[in-house]
Amino acid sequence: MRQKVAVLGSTGSIGRQTLEVISALSDRFEVVSLAAGRNVDLLSSQIEAFRPRLVAVADEEVAARLKSKVDDAVRVVWGRDGLVEAAIAGDPDVVVVAVVGSSGLQPTLAALAENKTVALANKETLVAGGELVSQVLAGGRGRLLPIDSEHSAIWQCLQGEASDRVAKVILTASGGPFRTASKDEMERARPADALQHPTWSMGGKITVDSATMMNKGLEVIEAHWLFGIGYDQIQVIVHPQSIIHSMVEFQDGSLKAQLGAPDMRVPIQYALCYPDRPPVAWKRLSLLDLATLTFEPPDLERFPCLALAYRAGREGGTAPAALNAANEVAVEAFLTERIGFGDIARCVESVLEAHTVTSAENLDSIVEADAWARQEAWEWIRRR
Amino acid sequence: MRQKVAVLGSTGSIGRQTLEVISALSDRFEVVSLAAGRNVDLLSSQIEAFRPRLVAVADEEVAARLKSKVDDAVRVVWGRDGLVEAAIAGDPDVVVVAVVGSSGLQPTLAALAENKTVALANKETLVAGGELVSQVLAGGRGRLLPIDSEHSAIWQCLQGEASDRVAKVILTASGGPFRTASKDEMERARPADALQHPTWSMGGKITVDSATMMNKGLEVIEAHWLFGIGYDQIQVIVHPQSIIHSMVEFQDGSLKAQLGAPDMRVPIQYALCYPDRPPVAWKRLSLLDLATLTFEPPDLERFPCLALAYRAGREGGTAPAALNAANEVAVEAFLTERIGFGDIARCVESVLEAHTVTSAENLDSIVEADAWARQEAWEWIRRR
Repeated sequence: MRQKVAVLGSTGSIGRQTLEVISALSDRFEVVSLAAGRNVDLLSSQIEAFRPRLVAVADEEVAARLKSKVDDAVRVVWGRDGLVEAAIAGDPDVVVVAVVGSSGLQPTLAALAENKTVALANKETLVAGGELVSQVLAGGRGRLLPIDSEHSAIWQCLQGEASDRVAKVILTASGGPFRTASKDEMERARPADALQHPTWSMGGKITVDSATMMNKGLEVIEAHWLFGIGYDQIQVIVHPQSIIHSMVEFQDGSLKAQLGAPDMRVPIQYALCYPDRPPVAWKRLSLLDLATLTFEPPDLERFPCLALAYRAGREGGTAPAALNAANEVAVEAFLTERIGFGDIARCVESVLEAHTVTSAENLDSIVEADAWARQEAWEWIRRR
Repeated sequence: MRQKVAVLGSTGSIGRQTLEVISALSDRFEVVSLAAGRNVDLLSSQIEAFRPRLVAVADEEVAARLKSKVDDAVRVVWGRDGLVEAAIAGDPDVVVVAVVGSSGLQPTLAALAENKTVALANKETLVAGGELVSQVLAGGRGRLLPIDSEHSAIWQCLQGEASDRVAKVILTASGGPFRTASKDEMERARPADALQHPTWSMGGKITVDSATMMNKGLEVIEAHWLFGIGYDQIQVIVHPQSIIHSMVEFQDGSLKAQLGAPDMRVPIQYALCYPDRPPVAWKRLSLLDLATLTFEPPDLERFPCLALAYRAGREGGTAPAALNAANEVAVEAFLTERIGFGDIARCVESVLEAHTVTSAENLDSIVEADAWARQEAWEWIRRR
């Protein structure tokens, strides 16, 4: 019997690659639901190819446009409730949460509450809702599997190992397009500069996050919740070649690393097939790609977002939710050229400093901190 | 209750480090027997420190010298039978086989036949006797755990993974002292040149084997038997920094690597404590050590011994035993300056070509091939 998969965020980069993996393993998986935003053209062709029973889109207007394109067998829902419905309707075995931004939290919580397996490609879910997600996980039989390449790498390195023997988790970072740039060059950077990622091809928001290294900071917080490990035991190392996707150091001084071509289909397939590793058709890492691997410590002076993320993570409560929301706003303002590149960190820092941290044990407080931080960030940008 | 350990080859490099590990974990392990060759001084101080019940030495004369130095509570035995007795007397939980050369095979077989766990640091055992050892393992409850850093790395990478999903095992090689030398320089190399190993501090025989890369060739054959993997799936890559100790590539294109400081106490402790990884006092890998890792394909033109080992491994039967025996003789002749460095490979190749391969399913045929190859190698050296 084939495993039923719900793919939330199916028209995004991870969503499309998830469907590629499912296509290649069509004897193992079938798609029961899809969720996307407004890309009706791509979504309707995905519906034709994968025949889901339910599809969720951004709003009623998009839903109407989609309905006119697909046959009546497909139920079309919309909005936040539609997204949650797509996560649980059709009794999926695996829910791939690959939506962008903070909208990943609610469907993740809903799926885990129904004891589903969630394959998570949305960082913000654990950044903002890590405490809440951990509680739901602890109280049920749901499972949370990482798709992000770094966390997949750590998860792979932890296979067959006792978690109480982990000394350190080492997240590798490409260093982004500004790894060797001066602070001045970074201040003057335009969106087009920040969108030049050296090794991975990704969406706009995540590429800017990679340029500020906020991306890595969010991953630090995510690793904290995914692997139940303290911030002092999470280290970031810059590795420009992005061949080693992350490492784990054990208490006996031995380290394990997971490496491979920079291809998200590998961690996607691993999460879907775990613990199996069926053969793939795509290009493998050639040992020639290994020629030289370099490593350097991150420069917190030029990448203050990384330090801000550690700080918010250590503060706990709603601080990471505020960090994340402020960052989303600041990145949007940068991409629309309302603020400079260096302002992203300044905006986030200002919001974090103004934020009164409260407990993040319920969705309301997270949603409230998120909304407050967005407003605070927009105000900072207006004042700028 | 403490685990009982027999340490065969206790005065050698691996043996001494095994006793260091046992000292540091004296609440977990006790030494029930030791075996060594002729180093009576070191052996008697080890006896004083670890209080084994039985000690094996090279011959009766050495035994007499040792007896005069230690108290009567210690039984002293000698020769090949003594070594085998040290492997099974006192009902050890783990037998560390760290003797040099082909003398490791008999005690390994004896211990496995008694369903013991053997922690193997002796390459020649599996090179010459891999087929036989595999049969004994298949027919009983004995276990064979690698101590060699490369095989320990592979074993660590295989934890929690299905062996039928392994695509490739990638052994890293430092490239030895002649990695960047010309063929001419290598022909003129003296023993002192070959004994300069860039990253590991080891005994003389193994250091010369590292200079010819025969060491890596023997490890290829060992990996074949340890992990049940075909020669086409075993690859060697030169990695001069010796930080990555080896890698495994899986069928999904994901690779795992094990890395760490070049310290044999890590794989020794891993084999003794498996699957636990207790904390250690010794120096860990600093991430600064990682600064640059390089990789290059091995040059089979300058390192013909590596190709010879693959060839012998693929021929199977007694060919690897003959390869190993011829190599031992050739290295000895090189170290005593009877032949040049380049002659080592020529001697081994000549012996391999003259060898009539037979089945290696019993000890006699292996011993016979070994003896024949030694004689053939000496004759080649004399003719030279």
